[in-house]
Amino acid sequence: MTDTTLDAAPAQEALYTEVQQFYARHMQLLDSGRAEEWAQTFTEDGEFAPEHRPEPVVGRTALARAVRSAHEALVAAGEVRRHWHGMVAVDSAADGSLHVRCYALIIGTVLGGDPQVRMSCVCEDVLVREDGELKVSRRRVTKDGVGAPG
Amino acid sequence: MTDTTLDAAPAQEALYTEVQQFYARHMQLLDSGRAEEWAQTFTEDGEFAPEHRPEPVVGRTALARAVRSAHEALVAAGEVRRHWHGMVAVDSAADGSLHVRCYALIIGTVLGGDPQVRMSCVCEDVLVREDGELKVSRRRVTKDGVGAPG
Amino acid sequence: MTDTTLDAAPAQEALYTEVQQFYARHMQLLDSGRAEEWAQTFTEDGEFAPEHRPEPVVGRTALARAVRSAHEALVAAGEVRRHWHGMVAVDSAADGSLHVRCYALIIGTVLGGDPQVRMSCVCEDVLVREDGELKVSRRRVTKDGVGAPG
Repeated sequence: MTDTTLDAAPAQEALYTEVQQFYARHMQLLDSGRAEEWAQTFTEDGEFAPEHRPEPVVGRTALARAVRSAHEALVAAGEVRRHWHGMVAVDSAADGSLHVRCYALIIGTVLGGDPQVRMSCVCEDVLVREDGELKVSRRRVTKDGVGAPG
Repeated sequence: MTDTTLDAAPAQEALYTEVQQFYARHMQLLDSGRAEEWAQTFTEDGEFAPEHRPEPVVGRTALARAVRSAHEALVAAGEVRRHWHGMVAVDSAADGSLHVRCYALIIGTVLGGDPQVRMSCVCEDVLVREDGELKVSRRRVTKDGVGAPG
Repeated sequence: MTDTTLDAAPAQEALYTEVQQFYARHMQLLDSGRAEEWAQTFTEDGEFAPEHRPEPVVGRTALARAVRSAHEALVAAGEVRRHWHGMVAVDSAADGSLHVRCYALIIGTVLGGDPQVRMSCVCEDVLVREDGELKVSRRRVTKDGVGAPG
């Protein structure tokens, strides 16, 4: 995080706080099934690449469609999911983008049931600023328990 | 979070950090059974309204009593609980209060047993400042798996 | 956190952000099995004292060896572990060190399996600054479910 020490750049703590607020809203939109608003937290050509899926989802329209469909399936199954990000490491790149590596946990609770840890992942995001707001331009997700441990 | 950009208001990052420290201490007091100190982190007429309970708990005396009694039951059962807040979204209201929406996870471990996720919730707090310190004036908790997913 | 209000000391929010970034990297190094780099996040004579183990691990060489050996055992068992810190309460001591009390959660996922909560702990760290960087000088970990609840 070197270039953020320039006078023109926001201080580390302002950036880190902004990233935390960003993920809080981003995940709450996702888990509430507000698919279009969630897709707006990506760039227009934003890419979501989970390693355990055959290919990445690219662009807001496809991103919103994927979330809408996943959320409908959860509602039909009576399940609420909560996505948590933690251990969020943020590095500023020379081009002004932020490179984030963090852990993600998905907790699922079915109607009348106990919460279950559905998934533990590593999430690597490239965040960029558009019109003053952070957006995900590229997300790579690696699900624990799928490939070789590392 | 508009009014916090005024000169007189603390910067976003200072507020967000303060909220994180507040919840850290608030939850540690709760889980340690320090009921009276925990109740002091609410306003005098603070209200805790879990949707899955028949009615809200109002006021420090009632809040402390509820926690003391819950903690005694856990000690008798040999269980330690840990409350985690995550995905903490903070908005400043025009009246200076902070509106927080976040996730809560309760982890319980009985003596000799493995940790279990006891509860996944959404927590909505109104935080106000009294004598320079943040206090919960109103908390609304929605437990996952109880009502319709949303 | 009184002495950090001095002009010469970093502001609360800068310190708190630094602690969060520190733990994010510290835990990612640990879970990736980067034992030597992880040991560098302790002071040369850093001490890791888990209450559920017979004696503390002291010094970078011993810390790195312990992590390398634990990581090799996990790789052999096909398990990935993720250490999460949460509810991080940071206090500045008069000597400039930071006293942290927080919760720790260890999530383990075996190849082809579902994630399990392996451990819930309380972590108490003393952090000091060396060559401009935070280091753990002393860590005390109390595992839930082992002693009397408190």
